[in-house]
Amino acid sequence: MRVIALLTDFGTVDGYVAAMKGRILTLAPQATVVDITHDIPPFDIRSGAFTLYNCYRQFPPQTVFVTVVDPGVGTRRAGVVLQSDHYVFVGPDNGVFSLVLQNESVSAYHIRTDQLPWDVSYTFHGRDVFAPLGALAVANPEEMMKYLVPANQPLQTFWTPPRWETPTRIRAEVLHVDRFGNIILNIRRPDFGEHPLDHFRVTVKGHNIAGLKKTFGDVRPGELLINFDSSDFLQIAKNQGNAARELQVQPGDEVLIHL
Amino acid sequence: MRVIALLTDFGTVDGYVAAMKGRILTLAPQATVVDITHDIPPFDIRSGAFTLYNCYRQFPPQTVFVTVVDPGVGTRRAGVVLQSDHYVFVGPDNGVFSLVLQNESVSAYHIRTDQLPWDVSYTFHGRDVFAPLGALAVANPEEMMKYLVPANQPLQTFWTPPRWETPTRIRAEVLHVDRFGNIILNIRRPDFGEHPLDHFRVTVKGHNIAGLKKTFGDVRPGELLINFDSSDFLQIAKNQGNAARELQVQPGDEVLIHL
Amino acid sequence: MRVIALLTDFGTVDGYVAAMKGRILTLAPQATVVDITHDIPPFDIRSGAFTLYNCYRQFPPQTVFVTVVDPGVGTRRAGVVLQSDHYVFVGPDNGVFSLVLQNESVSAYHIRTDQLPWDVSYTFHGRDVFAPLGALAVANPEEMMKYLVPANQPLQTFWTPPRWETPTRIRAEVLHVDRFGNIILNIRRPDFGEHPLDHFRVTVKGHNIAGLKKTFGDVRPGELLINFDSSDFLQIAKNQGNAARELQVQPGDEVLIHL
Repeated sequence: MRVIALLTDFGTVDGYVAAMKGRILTLAPQATVVDITHDIPPFDIRSGAFTLYNCYRQFPPQTVFVTVVDPGVGTRRAGVVLQSDHYVFVGPDNGVFSLVLQNESVSAYHIRTDQLPWDVSYTFHGRDVFAPLGALAVANPEEMMKYLVPANQPLQTFWTPPRWETPTRIRAEVLHVDRFGNIILNIRRPDFGEHPLDHFRVTVKGHNIAGLKKTFGDVRPGELLINFDSSDFLQIAKNQGNAARELQVQPGDEVLIHL
Repeated sequence: MRVIALLTDFGTVDGYVAAMKGRILTLAPQATVVDITHDIPPFDIRSGAFTLYNCYRQFPPQTVFVTVVDPGVGTRRAGVVLQSDHYVFVGPDNGVFSLVLQNESVSAYHIRTDQLPWDVSYTFHGRDVFAPLGALAVANPEEMMKYLVPANQPLQTFWTPPRWETPTRIRAEVLHVDRFGNIILNIRRPDFGEHPLDHFRVTVKGHNIAGLKKTFGDVRPGELLINFDSSDFLQIAKNQGNAARELQVQPGDEVLIHL
Repeated sequence: MRVIALLTDFGTVDGYVAAMKGRILTLAPQATVVDITHDIPPFDIRSGAFTLYNCYRQFPPQTVFVTVVDPGVGTRRAGVVLQSDHYVFVGPDNGVFSLVLQNESVSAYHIRTDQLPWDVSYTFHGRDVFAPLGALAVANPEEMMKYLVPANQPLQTFWTPPRWETPTRIRAEVLHVDRFGNIILNIRRPDFGEHPLDHFRVTVKGHNIAGLKKTFGDVRPGELLINFDSSDFLQIAKNQGNAARELQVQPGDEVLIHL
């Protein structure tokens, strides 16, 4: 049993996802096809990256993730296949794997789209490139390797690491704002190692927020808080509210963390 | 072949459902995972109960239903596993199985969450408790039983039975209002036995509605009617309109039925 | 491995689709059930036909398509089973297979609903007629044939062929307007054979649009264009806009094509 898990921003109404599933089941009839979601906001690479990151480790070993949030389809952006010890990732090289790459050591390949022995449209690489390569990863890995070349350039990423300016001050930045307005930063719980966190404070856009909480309910409705999200990213949130709107922040904005 | 059917209020965009599927396929690779829906209105236990009730009898024997509409996650509400002759139900003990329990004789168990030999988060029992127990119901029922204890208290339910005040007058109540405004009552077709229904009349909030119809089209657009829904519950509806809004009723409101 | 692919306008929240899946897996446990979509706009036969057409050829041979967009359920409209060399199609005879029939030679059968040896409701033929017949197409084709009779009348269709009035002028019509406002015509790329297309011009509602483009980006934002869509239908579109709203066109409207 091999799982092929699909994540796209295609919605389902037009049959695009169904075309991918049909293509996969034709090439790899033995695969179990699983929907992660097709409701990523159109072209939102960061949302796609977060949703993939939030679930991929739950999947069985050797799962293939076909991940298509692809605003650059038809341009010269490359396609990639990433192989880690446990998983295979297939999709455009546009940053959608930025967070997976923080967690996984991979062998990275670019896809030689012009070598594929079938028709490839200009506008639908989900059906014509990524779905069939994901299917080949299950059904015929040797054939898949014919269409790959080791990636000799760094992959696209929206990840920038936080900077420790002093042992108690970190210059971080906003990685993503989710649909609830939670502000996710580019730093995770393990990054703090054994450092005590009992004087925790962040500064963002002139606001100070102090104290590290466990969950939303630890502050009153309408109050801001800092906690680790369910994937261990540090986030700034507002109990029963939208933190990003209140603080007017966007991805890339600077956040200072004081320990 | 064993089916594990999933019903949640998680939506699909965040990857929560995908995390549950991944966990299930890791523990029970032989299972067929089926989506019932993930679009239950958030925290709407009654809608979850109705949707489950409307479809579960169509599934193959031994299907496992993992049902997660769980506003009380993180509180002391218990988790339950219900085993009937034909099916297994896994989810929070908060009333989401109220209607199934009207139809099925079950052995009921509470989940010993603190005995589970893996990490359990405070906020995501769908992934950490209910999905893995549903998977064990298929892959290793003996191990599942280690984490269960017979329920020695009545399960939570929003069901209250109708009362026959006289042989021709029943005091019923509103069980649920669906998204079309249909008013579903706590009485079903079999409850009337062989009683003749040709003088049927209901009184609700000062309104009288007479005559039992088969379908919406049996009255003019805009008119109220009484009929049995596709699961045999008695309902008050409005042809091409919203009965609950017109009559200003809510779950728990009293309805008198005259035969 | 046999695939049963589902396309409906039921949405997923009420459990109707789940009831169909349960019924199918009960009758055909060996089948792989795949969702095409359940988000077809309610009763929109043309959208259902287009979505099916856009994906069905990607599926493995012997896939069964259960297609339920069925505003006429409960009336005397017939049910059909279509068998082509590669596929089986099951659903109401109301035009939802109009486009598939342009591409496939089929044996057509009507369903003898009154001969089915199980209960059939008035309002839910998806669960009671089409899902079980689709399952029998996989599990027991001989039994399925007992409930079919060769269709001795033409099937319902919304297809009308274009008319070549002269070797360089075609009277076509609007077949469908999709949810982006793209205007799809009743003529496809192969219909032009070897005819040169370098003087292409269409006239619709008093507007002239000249030149055949490859994709939206070949004109400036806000401009109208003509191209072939990803299923090779000729369409009138507007780069980053809604062509049907600008031109005030509807299905059935006449379009003149000059070569």
